[in-house]
Amino acid sequence: MNEENLKNIRHSAAHLLAAAVLELYPNAKRTIGPAIENGFYYDFDFGSDTITEEDIVKIEEKMGKLLKDWKGFNRREVTAEEAKEFYTDNPYKIELIEQFAGEGQTLTMYDSMNYKGEAFYTDLCRGGHSEFPKKEIGAFKLLSLAGAYWRGDEKNKMLTRIYGTAFPTKEELEQHLEMLEEARKRDHRRIGKELDLFVFSDSVGKGLPLYTHKGSIIRRELEQFIIKEEIKRGYQHVYTPDIASIELYKKSGHYPYYKDSMYSPIQIDDEQFMLRPMTCPHHFEIYLSRPRSYKELPMRIAELAHLYRYEKSGELTGLIRARAFTLADAHIIARVSQAKDEAKRCLDLIEYVASVFGLKQGENYSYRLSLGDRTDDKKYFKDDKAWENAEEVLRSVLKERKAQFVEAEGEAAFYGPKIDIQMKNFAGKEDTAFTVQYDFVMPKRFSLNYLNEEGKEEEAVVVHRSSIGAIERVMAFLIEHYAGAFPTWLSPVQVTLVPISDKHNDYAKEIFDKLIDLDVRVYLDDRAETMQSKIRNAQLQKVPYMIVVGDKEMEAKQISVRSRSGESRNGISLEEFIIELKTEISEKK
Amino acid sequence: MNEENLKNIRHSAAHLLAAAVLELYPNAKRTIGPAIENGFYYDFDFGSDTITEEDIVKIEEKMGKLLKDWKGFNRREVTAEEAKEFYTDNPYKIELIEQFAGEGQTLTMYDSMNYKGEAFYTDLCRGGHSEFPKKEIGAFKLLSLAGAYWRGDEKNKMLTRIYGTAFPTKEELEQHLEMLEEARKRDHRRIGKELDLFVFSDSVGKGLPLYTHKGSIIRRELEQFIIKEEIKRGYQHVYTPDIASIELYKKSGHYPYYKDSMYSPIQIDDEQFMLRPMTCPHHFEIYLSRPRSYKELPMRIAELAHLYRYEKSGELTGLIRARAFTLADAHIIARVSQAKDEAKRCLDLIEYVASVFGLKQGENYSYRLSLGDRTDDKKYFKDDKAWENAEEVLRSVLKERKAQFVEAEGEAAFYGPKIDIQMKNFAGKEDTAFTVQYDFVMPKRFSLNYLNEEGKEEEAVVVHRSSIGAIERVMAFLIEHYAGAFPTWLSPVQVTLVPISDKHNDYAKEIFDKLIDLDVRVYLDDRAETMQSKIRNAQLQKVPYMIVVGDKEMEAKQISVRSRSGESRNGISLEEFIIELKTEISEKK
Repeated sequence: MNEENLKNIRHSAAHLLAAAVLELYPNAKRTIGPAIENGFYYDFDFGSDTITEEDIVKIEEKMGKLLKDWKGFNRREVTAEEAKEFYTDNPYKIELIEQFAGEGQTLTMYDSMNYKGEAFYTDLCRGGHSEFPKKEIGAFKLLSLAGAYWRGDEKNKMLTRIYGTAFPTKEELEQHLEMLEEARKRDHRRIGKELDLFVFSDSVGKGLPLYTHKGSIIRRELEQFIIKEEIKRGYQHVYTPDIASIELYKKSGHYPYYKDSMYSPIQIDDEQFMLRPMTCPHHFEIYLSRPRSYKELPMRIAELAHLYRYEKSGELTGLIRARAFTLADAHIIARVSQAKDEAKRCLDLIEYVASVFGLKQGENYSYRLSLGDRTDDKKYFKDDKAWENAEEVLRSVLKERKAQFVEAEGEAAFYGPKIDIQMKNFAGKEDTAFTVQYDFVMPKRFSLNYLNEEGKEEEAVVVHRSSIGAIERVMAFLIEHYAGAFPTWLSPVQVTLVPISDKHNDYAKEIFDKLIDLDVRVYLDDRAETMQSKIRNAQLQKVPYMIVVGDKEMEAKQISVRSRSGESRNGISLEEFIIELKTEISEKK
Repeated sequence: MNEENLKNIRHSAAHLLAAAVLELYPNAKRTIGPAIENGFYYDFDFGSDTITEEDIVKIEEKMGKLLKDWKGFNRREVTAEEAKEFYTDNPYKIELIEQFAGEGQTLTMYDSMNYKGEAFYTDLCRGGHSEFPKKEIGAFKLLSLAGAYWRGDEKNKMLTRIYGTAFPTKEELEQHLEMLEEARKRDHRRIGKELDLFVFSDSVGKGLPLYTHKGSIIRRELEQFIIKEEIKRGYQHVYTPDIASIELYKKSGHYPYYKDSMYSPIQIDDEQFMLRPMTCPHHFEIYLSRPRSYKELPMRIAELAHLYRYEKSGELTGLIRARAFTLADAHIIARVSQAKDEAKRCLDLIEYVASVFGLKQGENYSYRLSLGDRTDDKKYFKDDKAWENAEEVLRSVLKERKAQFVEAEGEAAFYGPKIDIQMKNFAGKEDTAFTVQYDFVMPKRFSLNYLNEEGKEEEAVVVHRSSIGAIERVMAFLIEHYAGAFPTWLSPVQVTLVPISDKHNDYAKEIFDKLIDLDVRVYLDDRAETMQSKIRNAQLQKVPYMIVVGDKEMEAKQISVRSRSGESRNGISLEEFIIELKTEISEKK
């Protein structure tokens, strides 16, 4: 089934939804109903009626009945007057008709015809439907209700949006619904709550996550992992301020491009300061703090940088879209001759980091080469030769490592081309997780120079890159990827100790102390609960290992170990288990 | 020599300074010249004359001549008219005279009399002088020149301030100058520059330090040390946002008390957000994210919290006074019955951390118990019984550990009494480095409750505390404390490898790789320089160990080690050195 057919099926199903709604709610006003990724929606103004999940079932039933008798579409061209007459009491459609007519578009109406040859539903539409709806719409389902402003503008009236999906076969629908259910179960906001990893507070503000004890452990492990790995690869890890004078971003040229996603200025004495939306100029100021020699290049300046970018409150999504985030950022200041090798090393690091999480290129993530548009001097710095050269450097890096990649015109940064790391989430949705950028503009703006072998000043280039992206996003991604069952090195609690009854508590405490001494994150569950309940609790919390100790274990000075996946090993020595556990942790398995 | 006499000597020396200046610069206008801690100053308006360091020598010589013939002071009461007539062309003195007269003060003039019985200098003054200046001012010195606004107001004219000091004996002056020289050498701003630990940038903004690679290593080590130690002691280390809605600080009641040291609000949509000046309410929101049981208490929530407080640009001092800083902060939410033990544990932690840096209670730091003022309801929350109880808890904690402490009235926080940790810097200056606070107000404002054994709600108390203070301040303190020669665990470079000539580079590289694998911070100095120059460079950078390898070492597969302090050991095995080094690092010696 190709994408086009699937889209036609879903667009047809949107007509079917509207037909059913109008039969059940004759006073409802239709607005728009397009096919979207994975399904369709239709927005209605239900007036004083309130639609609930139960009504959705009725609408679905009505759709099923209408579909049985749906033969096809009948297309008619109409004048704006005819169209407006049809929608007399519907201001939304009239607004659309006037807009389309004003743009000189041909207006078309589509009648949905039954087998008797009667139109059971008619709507203004540009087309793109199934020819034989009854045959082609093998299965459909309404999925959810949501509020949506007319034309997406919060100054307008809030409408009721009904989401649905449709497929050629029942099997495909079932498969899709299973995937949705799994995605719902894995939703990092849901798991974050269940495992108490992070919270939001209305008093603190929207889009500003607070990491609890457990979530902070995961975050700290990720941060320490990335810092250690980057230092090993020759990065200098620094700390720079999260605010800076507005002049810094004007100097860098970021301000006009980023203004809308920056927060309002903070006045200090007679200066204005900004929450920083990016790290680049901060790192350049460190570079510029003294004269540099070619011997110091490439200088790889890295930081876990707190950044602040405006997101509309409606678009905030747990840790994935927050108003403050921490980017594993770096700027490599290099000679032109070193740039290619540095870009290559960036991809080496990215692929290594991804491999630690079991992520595979091609499967979980892919590369995209984002190019500038030579004709757009507003969006892209004008220097054709520099663009050609930079694009070729990045292209050859990708080609030489035989990486699959697509090229995307007009997706570059204003200062140069970039390689986007496109990450696929559990539900198959692809997003740019982070980038490797080639920058020939900032070195000019900031005079990022160095003294060459002859003692003469030369201009450097900058490679901007992340290794793992924003800590918030990668946490959200990993929560969903592992469905909360983190590998042992990332687990907030690595071992739960389960004494079978009170009399085993002392022995359990002995083991607890040994593990604590070895920096194992262990929880001693000495509550007055049954063993079964303690084990169930540890499993719900997705703790990788449970050590159970009862009479037998105490006598033999041994332990029994249950893994999160259900495997049990009885009567093994604590020392043996510790060696295995520490290896697993240090190897990040 | 008591403080009063010392002050009289210095105040007399200020008259002497002004007398010398007026003889050399008859057009200079005098303003004020008090004794201060460690010396004195006098502010002059030199008109169009510019005073340089060379002029200072001349002024000193003139002072010496005048002092030889200085018999004593002659006190005279005068009317405002008489005084104003004396200072006809000096608007500063006239302003002072009018002010004092307006306040109904008796005006006095002091004549400095020589042995002939003549007045060689006369000034308006309240008194407080040496009776026999020639005898009592055993030694004096002018120290520096600075600009100072008339009456400290930047809207007024900038005057020239001349600083000096005076002592009863030459020996005491010498000792003081040596101390000043040592303090100057140890100044963290100077060492920070020499060792390239941190920089400031005009483009980023005043009071916002950027940590370079090397400074960041020290900071990271300090942070990881404190996080690890706190977690070991049962703290939950969290991450919370650096900004929050202004409503949060209104809810906490901090806003009216902290408003002046908070930065201006950031507008996001229709809400105002603030750079946070403190962490407390952020941690309370985590506590409030779900219902709590008595079994979870005491809950010790800690964070390396980025905080922002306004400092006047004139008061910014390197890392000691910055506009952004990172506090090792914590809030212990406890039952009333647990508060005393928790306060005790805080002091245990503080004393342990201090001991790691070789700091001793009584010598390097001391305790101060800061109490509220029951009569001041504006500054302190009204609840006499709660104050009595809280003050007694803290007092008994200090008494039980037999700690020396002073009590200070009216120095408490608005929500309860506190123990201040008073730290002495190298020059003997004492400051409150951080505090342990007992808070019975926030639990009410935030409803910090828990369910007790009977399932009933009870109100908690909060202990606010730091363990090491602000990372910025502690770094500044340690830089001065160690004069840049950090213990090995904190040293940015722990070992410098010095191959004697090119042919030893490969062997040095072998050793380098081994040390890198063991996470030792090592620098291979394979520049084409002499061994002596490489060693000198490492010593200037205060690197704890230098490994020197030449023919002998290469043949025997051994190394020679020089320590920063100059000790040398030749022909030892690398393995032996590594064991010693790793022990020294892990024991933080």
